[in-house]
Amino acid sequence: MSVHLPLADVWSALEEVRARRPLVHNITSYVAMAISANTLLALGASPAMAHAAEEVEDFVATADALVINIGTLSSDWSVAMRKAATHAGEVGKPWVLDPVGCGASAYRTHAAVALAALAPDVIRGNASEILSLAGEGSGGKGVESLSNAEEARGAAMALAKRTGAVVAVTGAVDYVTGGGKPIAVRAGHALMPLSTALGCSLSAVIAAFTAVRPPREAALAALAVFGAAGSAAAARCRGPGHLPAEICDALHLMTPETLGQYARIEVPAAG
Amino acid sequence: MSVHLPLADVWSALEEVRARRPLVHNITSYVAMAISANTLLALGASPAMAHAAEEVEDFVATADALVINIGTLSSDWSVAMRKAATHAGEVGKPWVLDPVGCGASAYRTHAAVALAALAPDVIRGNASEILSLAGEGSGGKGVESLSNAEEARGAAMALAKRTGAVVAVTGAVDYVTGGGKPIAVRAGHALMPLSTALGCSLSAVIAAFTAVRPPREAALAALAVFGAAGSAAAARCRGPGHLPAEICDALHLMTPETLGQYARIEVPAAG
Amino acid sequence: MSVHLPLADVWSALEEVRARRPLVHNITSYVAMAISANTLLALGASPAMAHAAEEVEDFVATADALVINIGTLSSDWSVAMRKAATHAGEVGKPWVLDPVGCGASAYRTHAAVALAALAPDVIRGNASEILSLAGEGSGGKGVESLSNAEEARGAAMALAKRTGAVVAVTGAVDYVTGGGKPIAVRAGHALMPLSTALGCSLSAVIAAFTAVRPPREAALAALAVFGAAGSAAAARCRGPGHLPAEICDALHLMTPETLGQYARIEVPAAG
Repeated sequence: MSVHLPLADVWSALEEVRARRPLVHNITSYVAMAISANTLLALGASPAMAHAAEEVEDFVATADALVINIGTLSSDWSVAMRKAATHAGEVGKPWVLDPVGCGASAYRTHAAVALAALAPDVIRGNASEILSLAGEGSGGKGVESLSNAEEARGAAMALAKRTGAVVAVTGAVDYVTGGGKPIAVRAGHALMPLSTALGCSLSAVIAAFTAVRPPREAALAALAVFGAAGSAAAARCRGPGHLPAEICDALHLMTPETLGQYARIEVPAAG
Repeated sequence: MSVHLPLADVWSALEEVRARRPLVHNITSYVAMAISANTLLALGASPAMAHAAEEVEDFVATADALVINIGTLSSDWSVAMRKAATHAGEVGKPWVLDPVGCGASAYRTHAAVALAALAPDVIRGNASEILSLAGEGSGGKGVESLSNAEEARGAAMALAKRTGAVVAVTGAVDYVTGGGKPIAVRAGHALMPLSTALGCSLSAVIAAFTAVRPPREAALAALAVFGAAGSAAAARCRGPGHLPAEICDALHLMTPETLGQYARIEVPAAG
Repeated sequence: MSVHLPLADVWSALEEVRARRPLVHNITSYVAMAISANTLLALGASPAMAHAAEEVEDFVATADALVINIGTLSSDWSVAMRKAATHAGEVGKPWVLDPVGCGASAYRTHAAVALAALAPDVIRGNASEILSLAGEGSGGKGVESLSNAEEARGAAMALAKRTGAVVAVTGAVDYVTGGGKPIAVRAGHALMPLSTALGCSLSAVIAAFTAVRPPREAALAALAVFGAAGSAAAARCRGPGHLPAEICDALHLMTPETLGQYARIEVPAAG
């Protein structure tokens, strides 16, 4: 049994993002930069991309939230990521970790584990990444998941307990947990995994919501809004090519009706 | 009182770009690379992206113009940028500085000031960036401007006098000054700030025009052509998602009629 | 005289890509990353982007094929590229070299020559790049070709003999040679050179096909499929802006009929 959470709370969080226009500092992969920036702008937030160790603390200090994505990691960036995450903790800015490809190489897994230890507010990944980061998986196939989100629910709960972060594991159905029984978010479309960096963009959208809501509510709102945008976008596409552009339009034009049509949040019933 | 400059000069500059197909060397941000390259190709110019200190001088020597954009600055790139700018001066190639996020961190402001001292032909930025580079501002919110272009007109004039560059400060209305009273360019559309790196692409377009016109005429032509393309593009969009693609199409299909419909250049009357 | 090769073999190779979903490890330019990833996903392959020297060997080991593209080369990346290419040889993974801008700087030419000596399975470039890499050219204009593919056929044959690679030189007509008389592939559209990084994406597509076919068949199949997608895409475009998105849709929706409509492979008659 599960309880359907009303989407009115999600909508009001989106209205607050649009009104406050939070500045989201992105230390993200080369692949994801442009689409993440466009997604944030379409959502109503303001993106900044800066990764030099010399200036990440300045950007963290000014920003309303931070997202760190290890998709195209290298040693210089790794230093800057840890510095930014540490400073986010010092100045009390919420931050989101996207452990892209965790498990695909020892280097990447170590980097993800080290960042996860710096108290992110939210960790978002696919099933393989979450299983690997929780120490339960054998890694993905490159950056794609070999497992279903369902299989990573236990790992997500364990990871949430260990790190104190809210963990979102995304797939055909998404799950969000702060350590307890995961809440399911049903939204999105099968075309989405065929367009690169949409998961990365979702992590940036979660960061935008952490500027206006506590981590769990932020993650749920972001998954619902972004998933609904994906579904609305896919309805206008004949393939994956125009999906990123259509998602931006759908975010820009999002209404309570579209949100209600395409997203569902299922809270497990107590007991 | 202002005088409307005929757009015939702009059109003839665009025809010359299309005929000569200038090679524009871009040392630009990761976010802006693909869209800048596509914008230059659609305009009729030829882009090259190269940033290694070992080869930037070779590219400057071959190119017809250079654009340096500090959007995703780091120490290695900073060295290459200064080397390229210095060599552009030595071999007499025009170059454009885009001081992205100047004022958002001390690191970035210092880099922008150092580059501005290397005699760029044109500096293009938003109001916050120009105010900061002129030493008058307190910085932007990340890479977005907190000020209107109007508020930066005095700073633009001072910056032009100090550096010898033509300064273009862009916003809802754009202003171009070589130290004297700014010329206003009215073009563009309110959707444009919702799509990332369009300002960066505009700086690349200015560089293309500096290959065929002196700096002030180049900046004016670029602002008019790019702004008109933005307006024509926005007329075909329901949100910001398809704007970059539509701008490329509009540049590719630009006619004197579209230019005349969407762009206006206002030269302040003497006295 | 030439013989038209039936496209049934190309179609069956594409079906095998779609069925096996090969993981393609990309060490590619910043400009090309997002479009390469999207192209591979639309084709039916799975992309991974990773360039840190610490992890490229892990990715090579997991991947089904590798593509190395020197479009935005720097010293750190150069080290990782050589390491990855060497490891691909050690573990028997096919790899494709895209010598972007070879000839445009001494630095870039040296890097391309060093990589070509590491036994790539396929080398793909435009005429200027292939002429330069074969030691016969004087370099391109930045990354654009100043020569026709026809002019580089002899250089392609010589380069294939020297390196042992299959060489594909692409232009209005493409040519593929393993050292013998080149096979011509007629596909593609005049709009394609006006959209950045499509050649880079084609190299990634060749890599995907090397996971299911020997190098020469892989190159021919990739040129036919990608060219047909480009033609089908261009038929839906009024300019270059939407071409990358339309190419992804065309790859995703590719049928034997579309392939037959837009691609032709001409094998020179014996004697």
